[in-house]
Amino acid sequence: MAKNVGILALDIYFPPTCVLQEALEAHDGASKGKYTIGLGQDCMGFCTEVEDVISMSLTVVSSLLEKYGIDPKQIGRLEVGSETVIDKSKSIKTFLMQLFETSGNTDIEGVDSTNACYGGTAALFNCVNWVESNSWDGRYGLVVCTDSAVYAEGPARPTGGAAAIAMLIGPDAPIAFESKYRGSHMAHAYDFYKPNLASEYPVVDGKLSQTCYLMAVDACYKHFCQKYEKFEGKQFSVADADYFVFHSPYNKLVQKSFARLLFNDFLRNASSIDEASKEKLAPFANLSGDESYQSRDLEKASQQVAKPLYDAKVQPTTLIPKQVGNTYTASLYTAFASLLHNKNSSLGGQRAVLFSYGSGLTSTLFSVKFNDGNHPFSLSNISVAMSIDNRLKSRLEFAPEKFVETMHLMEKRYGGKDFETSKDCSLLAPGTYYLTGVDSMYRRFYSKKAGGTITVANGGC
Amino acid sequence: MAKNVGILALDIYFPPTCVLQEALEAHDGASKGKYTIGLGQDCMGFCTEVEDVISMSLTVVSSLLEKYGIDPKQIGRLEVGSETVIDKSKSIKTFLMQLFETSGNTDIEGVDSTNACYGGTAALFNCVNWVESNSWDGRYGLVVCTDSAVYAEGPARPTGGAAAIAMLIGPDAPIAFESKYRGSHMAHAYDFYKPNLASEYPVVDGKLSQTCYLMAVDACYKHFCQKYEKFEGKQFSVADADYFVFHSPYNKLVQKSFARLLFNDFLRNASSIDEASKEKLAPFANLSGDESYQSRDLEKASQQVAKPLYDAKVQPTTLIPKQVGNTYTASLYTAFASLLHNKNSSLGGQRAVLFSYGSGLTSTLFSVKFNDGNHPFSLSNISVAMSIDNRLKSRLEFAPEKFVETMHLMEKRYGGKDFETSKDCSLLAPGTYYLTGVDSMYRRFYSKKAGGTITVANGGC
Repeated sequence: MAKNVGILALDIYFPPTCVLQEALEAHDGASKGKYTIGLGQDCMGFCTEVEDVISMSLTVVSSLLEKYGIDPKQIGRLEVGSETVIDKSKSIKTFLMQLFETSGNTDIEGVDSTNACYGGTAALFNCVNWVESNSWDGRYGLVVCTDSAVYAEGPARPTGGAAAIAMLIGPDAPIAFESKYRGSHMAHAYDFYKPNLASEYPVVDGKLSQTCYLMAVDACYKHFCQKYEKFEGKQFSVADADYFVFHSPYNKLVQKSFARLLFNDFLRNASSIDEASKEKLAPFANLSGDESYQSRDLEKASQQVAKPLYDAKVQPTTLIPKQVGNTYTASLYTAFASLLHNKNSSLGGQRAVLFSYGSGLTSTLFSVKFNDGNHPFSLSNISVAMSIDNRLKSRLEFAPEKFVETMHLMEKRYGGKDFETSKDCSLLAPGTYYLTGVDSMYRRFYSKKAGGTITVANGGC
Repeated sequence: MAKNVGILALDIYFPPTCVLQEALEAHDGASKGKYTIGLGQDCMGFCTEVEDVISMSLTVVSSLLEKYGIDPKQIGRLEVGSETVIDKSKSIKTFLMQLFETSGNTDIEGVDSTNACYGGTAALFNCVNWVESNSWDGRYGLVVCTDSAVYAEGPARPTGGAAAIAMLIGPDAPIAFESKYRGSHMAHAYDFYKPNLASEYPVVDGKLSQTCYLMAVDACYKHFCQKYEKFEGKQFSVADADYFVFHSPYNKLVQKSFARLLFNDFLRNASSIDEASKEKLAPFANLSGDESYQSRDLEKASQQVAKPLYDAKVQPTTLIPKQVGNTYTASLYTAFASLLHNKNSSLGGQRAVLFSYGSGLTSTLFSVKFNDGNHPFSLSNISVAMSIDNRLKSRLEFAPEKFVETMHLMEKRYGGKDFETSKDCSLLAPGTYYLTGVDSMYRRFYSKKAGGTITVANGGC
């Protein structure tokens, strides 16, 4: 069986267009700090009328292949996670096949995985399992997470975002799965869903969604710890992982979730909790589960206890989620990309634990182990190739009015046919795919902006 | 690694309501035999307002668990394939979690797989790979295919159907995957898709869809044969499998597809083609690919050549697809269920090759090997447990007018909220789930008709 299967390389794409949360909260008439401190968000990326989940995924896949010098024939499996539905039957994966058909490779397994923000994780697990299975044919797997998160005007609107992530999967990876330590929690819930088929916007019960998320954190952590303890013969605590990476609808929820892990460690009498922390959490030891999700005092006390560990183990993962927003299936992996970007040279030998959540609901806590890797699949090369600082710096901040105007246009266009876009790709980087039009039969057409990405496979890093 | 991973048990559900194709063609004013001989279909099942893809999947999963005495805690993975979208974010899998949460088992991986009729095959491959991977935790996998295929009034309407299939996955299976022999063909096509999000009906280019299907048969067979020949060191031909099972939009296409395999064997000079057949096919040896898909003469000649082999190797798989119709993701597996039903006692040691197709497009040709298995997971027990004859016999034939009336009601209800159904479950068998209503927040509510299915795990078969 293939060994150390995991992520060999990772690339990220987000639109060059964004709106500052500070400007948006003023525009929306929200109280100062509601979006920036209350939600913990800095900026929100969004697609204009020339971009969508298909164009973003075309961009990120071709970018990854080019940067790492991967021949399209070397891909044996391609899977997409997304909850941004443009067609209810035809998968986004089949659009991506255009990048492979030209080289004569159509023998590529995999389709789209669907459940809210969790689809990318399902695709990732499927791809890793494939490499470990009898059906593996020796080629690479490729996982794509692509979403455009938009909300109707109202309190949820600032929790949008847009991005696509591509991950190359294979053996001997610098980011290897520790598949035996994995805890899932899946249940029937109506916290966030998209039953209004003609609208791009979800139906959201914000309060329920947050409680479901935190309950899922608890349940997954419990299952994860049980499995770790079964295989390792010792208790797991927050001290046993160097980093914790969360699906990030907004940063405040990530802060709460990590604090929740600490509270779990406290209840389990785990080694990560010192005497001072025990004292602070003791008043909450006998709360029922429900009470504990509602208690603001516990929230405050546990976040205070968690603060130093949050700064060390979580803060390095928050850059892109705070700057680009909630990117649904891509969200967890934009957080993971932030970690690779911030800590690449020091990650070798370390462990990260990742929490994936999709409303409805599906969730998993899982573990990866880093090693430096071999060029071009090295941690340092991945970091250079993503070029995150440059990408963030080269964005254009739209005024809130222009953002709202864009949303209005997108609402009209959603599910529509028989239109052409402006084809204005002046804001897009060379090598970016963009939507040119949709014909009377709903067929979508894309072009690629001339120029290309830098190849780093043979490069100087 | 787990050995002989595959299908341990299989159950099927289709609605008790159907319309005869002969009656429908008269009602539609179509020429006599257009649906029955032209399409090769006998009858079409459909959901009334109390059934949908969620209720059918609840029914078939609970039925399988009960019949085989499987404790819900023994399930470690549950995946759904469907293209009938009721919610664009919340997976059907999360609805099924209701059957497991009550027993305290929420640690169940997997979500929904999506690409037209192929999603069930993707789910099946994912589940088999999981059992063969490092992440397997020793429990069973469960795959569900569930679809309601409905078309707008017009030539495609008689190609509808409705069914759900559940398959239990694990090692030492009576239906074991030969995963090394697997050929896929994936490409970007607009043959059948669902871009009109507010409508349940697809956009279909019937002629293109048929050509895409046949091209996919050719491409998959080519890849399949290459892999077989690489591993076995000898040529593969139709003679090397006992049965061929096809995704069945309508039976006529299955006939054409099998003939196409024979034509491929002829072009490859394979052993399955005798001298008499060679002579009949010789005039078509130099047709281009495109010409060969358009040639009615080739179609006739190859079907004539294929007829005796079709009767032996394909006809036993056609019962349910002809009686229930195109059931999208479930279609291939209703054909496979027909084979198990017709040939159960004689399948041990034999091989079946299955062709899965989803428009858009994704397709795979793959192979399974049968062995008698051990009770309750034996071929004969699976056949008894499915009780296909009884299910088919106990259906109620609706007059075409009543079928059309039902379609009108379903059109109005699709994507709707704030309604109650008639809750009339008089036609449903005991143990069947049914939809009772959808509230103002689009939340769906189901009940289970009292009574239950027969347990055969400890039974007398």
